[in-house]
Amino acid sequence: MKSDLIIAQSKELKPIIEIAKSVNIPESSLELFGKYKAKLPIQLIDEERVKSAKLILVTAMTPTPAGEGKTTTSIALTEGLNQIGKRTTVVLREPSLGPVFGMKGGAAGGGYAQVVPMEDINLHFTGDFAAIEKANNLLAALVDNNIQSKKDNLGIDPRTVEWKRVMDMNDRSLRNIVSGMGGKPGGVMRETGFNITAASEIMAILCLARNIDDLKEKMGNIYIGDTYDGKAVFARDLKAEGAMAVLLKDAIKPNLVQTLEGNPAIIHGGPFANIAQGTNSLIATKMGMSLTDYVVTEAGFGADLGAEKFLNIKCRYGDISPRAVVLVATIRALKYHGGQPLADLKEPNTVALVKGLVNIERHIENMKVFGLPVIVSLNKFSGDSPEEVKILTDWCAKQQVPMALCEGWEKGGKGAIDLAEKVSEAAERTTRKFKSTYDWDWSVKEKIEAIARKIYGAKDIEYLPKAKQNLAKIERIGLNDKPVCIAKTQNSFSDDPRALGRPQNFTVTVREIEIAAGAGFSIPIMGNMLRMPGLPPLPAATGMDIDNDGRITGLS
Amino acid sequence: MKSDLIIAQSKELKPIIEIAKSVNIPESSLELFGKYKAKLPIQLIDEERVKSAKLILVTAMTPTPAGEGKTTTSIALTEGLNQIGKRTTVVLREPSLGPVFGMKGGAAGGGYAQVVPMEDINLHFTGDFAAIEKANNLLAALVDNNIQSKKDNLGIDPRTVEWKRVMDMNDRSLRNIVSGMGGKPGGVMRETGFNITAASEIMAILCLARNIDDLKEKMGNIYIGDTYDGKAVFARDLKAEGAMAVLLKDAIKPNLVQTLEGNPAIIHGGPFANIAQGTNSLIATKMGMSLTDYVVTEAGFGADLGAEKFLNIKCRYGDISPRAVVLVATIRALKYHGGQPLADLKEPNTVALVKGLVNIERHIENMKVFGLPVIVSLNKFSGDSPEEVKILTDWCAKQQVPMALCEGWEKGGKGAIDLAEKVSEAAERTTRKFKSTYDWDWSVKEKIEAIARKIYGAKDIEYLPKAKQNLAKIERIGLNDKPVCIAKTQNSFSDDPRALGRPQNFTVTVREIEIAAGAGFSIPIMGNMLRMPGLPPLPAATGMDIDNDGRITGLS
Repeated sequence: MKSDLIIAQSKELKPIIEIAKSVNIPESSLELFGKYKAKLPIQLIDEERVKSAKLILVTAMTPTPAGEGKTTTSIALTEGLNQIGKRTTVVLREPSLGPVFGMKGGAAGGGYAQVVPMEDINLHFTGDFAAIEKANNLLAALVDNNIQSKKDNLGIDPRTVEWKRVMDMNDRSLRNIVSGMGGKPGGVMRETGFNITAASEIMAILCLARNIDDLKEKMGNIYIGDTYDGKAVFARDLKAEGAMAVLLKDAIKPNLVQTLEGNPAIIHGGPFANIAQGTNSLIATKMGMSLTDYVVTEAGFGADLGAEKFLNIKCRYGDISPRAVVLVATIRALKYHGGQPLADLKEPNTVALVKGLVNIERHIENMKVFGLPVIVSLNKFSGDSPEEVKILTDWCAKQQVPMALCEGWEKGGKGAIDLAEKVSEAAERTTRKFKSTYDWDWSVKEKIEAIARKIYGAKDIEYLPKAKQNLAKIERIGLNDKPVCIAKTQNSFSDDPRALGRPQNFTVTVREIEIAAGAGFSIPIMGNMLRMPGLPPLPAATGMDIDNDGRITGLS
Repeated sequence: MKSDLIIAQSKELKPIIEIAKSVNIPESSLELFGKYKAKLPIQLIDEERVKSAKLILVTAMTPTPAGEGKTTTSIALTEGLNQIGKRTTVVLREPSLGPVFGMKGGAAGGGYAQVVPMEDINLHFTGDFAAIEKANNLLAALVDNNIQSKKDNLGIDPRTVEWKRVMDMNDRSLRNIVSGMGGKPGGVMRETGFNITAASEIMAILCLARNIDDLKEKMGNIYIGDTYDGKAVFARDLKAEGAMAVLLKDAIKPNLVQTLEGNPAIIHGGPFANIAQGTNSLIATKMGMSLTDYVVTEAGFGADLGAEKFLNIKCRYGDISPRAVVLVATIRALKYHGGQPLADLKEPNTVALVKGLVNIERHIENMKVFGLPVIVSLNKFSGDSPEEVKILTDWCAKQQVPMALCEGWEKGGKGAIDLAEKVSEAAERTTRKFKSTYDWDWSVKEKIEAIARKIYGAKDIEYLPKAKQNLAKIERIGLNDKPVCIAKTQNSFSDDPRALGRPQNFTVTVREIEIAAGAGFSIPIMGNMLRMPGLPPLPAATGMDIDNDGRITGLS
């Protein structure tokens, strides 16, 4: 099989002007980035069309560390829907450079189900991440400068500053630092650190903002820390939000690219549903819903993280609802959750497979509690045996859950026709909106417990001392009536990455709760979850190259 | 008078496709970034045309902290040359976000002599700085990851690591940090820091590279630090240069924009001749020289910094030579160097003015030592009195130096006709190449002393202990036969920013010498010079805003 990059490079792309024309966007509305990428003006969003468009959410069972092909399935389903005559746009998250140079690789799909130009999408793309990073770090510089300077000094107590810097890089050494060293000219010394850019509150704000005014208002509400008198300080007190919005003037516009089969793809906003909100921007989703009748979107990692946040945070802020949920499963992940070791996942093992079905069972139950129809999509690998596939097929039939084989990786859209038909059947039938897990006026604690018990299946919730302090602060700042965005491992329903399958009788531990007053949620951090990853022993970066003609190798 | 931003916004821009067509670049060669910016393929460089093109270098007397209008003059001169029938391209450096949000503002010219779209040029532009920052910081992450990891561990001694991270921000708190805190998972703790992105060695490399292969080779040569056994470690030992080059695949291409009068402008590569190489990229300069007969370019701050480095480093690496030098002077800077306090520079003071002429005198002498014809260009301000202008005019006549009034800020190209005529007269006449200040095979110490004595006029050169250690290391690494790129205050010929005019009998102190083995020079740092600036008490950022239609205010 050819590599993703080779397949992507061998395909002749349509000019993006043509893709735009196919969904009635005139050339004059496009802001071109080369021949194959363009930014779209927010004004193209049509709230009437948003109301009638059919949104399909692609999520997954609890993944193995390699990922189970959510993006690939989303793209294949889009191609398939277009092939059966349903005009469809795929709306995806932007890849982060961290995994590109680390271990997991890019996030532009795979095989014959990719969005292109994949090199550009996986690298700087149209500069959105860089702009978000800069806006985040401008605020940090303004905070430290205010502490240093006598003029307009707000009396911020450096020991209370919660605002961190960010960098789109897997760089564990920046996770915890001491800044401001070198005596008086070097600023005031304090403990701080960097998160990865996707985890920036600015990313979450951009993903939930309606327009520039809304963006500014939300950024002005960012909580920084406290004064020596214990008064909360916000970004607006530093007059930071105007300049930050200037930096984001283009980043707020969604990006149009294409699938390998020439269908429209919109890629905009933040990845990482484990440590962040993790779904693409509301502007992007609504843009897709303004362009075509069908929109396929994805929400990261397992449905306990991605779908939960997509529904309880993003859909509620944007007043939208999916018509159907596609749950991506793989034979290897099922075996993994049934106890087969990671290194042996290519070996057939029907015993482990049957045992692992409890994982997908819980995800299906969860989606049904949301009141949404579920279609299981098996992302088929060449090594999957017919017996193994049959076990899943029979099990789904017994559970009365529609299931389809997705061979999009190998065959593109024609490998996803069955899936497309089952999805459109469900979507045409659904009219009602999903049911939230919690009401926003519940306390933060009640909201955390609702998610932990109803979605994760936890028995108890423990709060470490720092989390308890944070709860008091949230109360004081008045963030109690906002949703919660839990940071938790993607490898388990619980906060222990080793607890596979469908763990029972477990306790989750809330270590601390970050305050995202601008984005409009709090971030309870469970277990050992870190918001700045590290590089693996052998980073993907060391295998990359480019020649004098600009041809890249080693990017996946 | 209207603000720069208002003037820039009121002008109707030509599509960049038309600008390209005017210099015979077909649309198919352009990589568009919106309607008014494009990247150009390096393949358009034509070494034959480079040989015959007339390059004009705009530099300046020692500036006041506000700057004396080098960029404005460069643009006005370009408009003027085009008006008198000399087809001319202006080639400029990219602005850094540090000063944009700090104090000095943008770097796209001013008044009726600007390059546009100025908001884009002053903000993220086409993402070059972000890409350079990322490549720099990827290398840093790979270094710390190698120290952390057992696999392929090179045995790097963390105490010796010289490679710093960068951020395009004025952020003094990052100047000196401790990274790698938080125990074993957080990496190995060490002292380090951030420079501003323009000071990154990657910026210097990009500005001196010929193509991607050359870029990779130079980046592979970057010196990182030593092993515990005292062996020098380079970026190539970490297999970093391929991935870094992948990140720079677009950044290496120069950017085409336009002047307010619709002439071609190429903007590419690094500012800050005080702390860095500071001139635009060799690729950009050669691109300009491939497009039109005349090219106007600038070199930052006073001629002691910008012009010296432009000639001794860039021109020698690129085998090019300017035909004439324009030395920008202002009445206010002359008075400042004659002892008039900064706050009173608007007041006429012929005594201070006459006294300040020694500053420009030394710069003119220096340019003549380089063997280049000099034209003094007076950047006229509305408050300059006729007596004051006459004093400078008479003095130039006495010195037999051509002088012209430049009123480009107020009048655009027609305010620079006289300057354009004098410049073209000199350029048509000049055929020989400039004479370097030193030979590359001299020792680093001899090269530092040549610049300090011949250009700055220093009597003695002192080396602090760290600088002496660095000299030994340079010898060991084999960087002795490369040029030197001195970091020094822009406010004086000496390393003391308060020593105005033409200081005599002074000693300069070399504090330390950074090693830039990849760029191919060493960086002696004189006096208190810092390579990461701080924000002022009232940062420009706090006065910026943008409305829902994307209209920006407060950017200058």
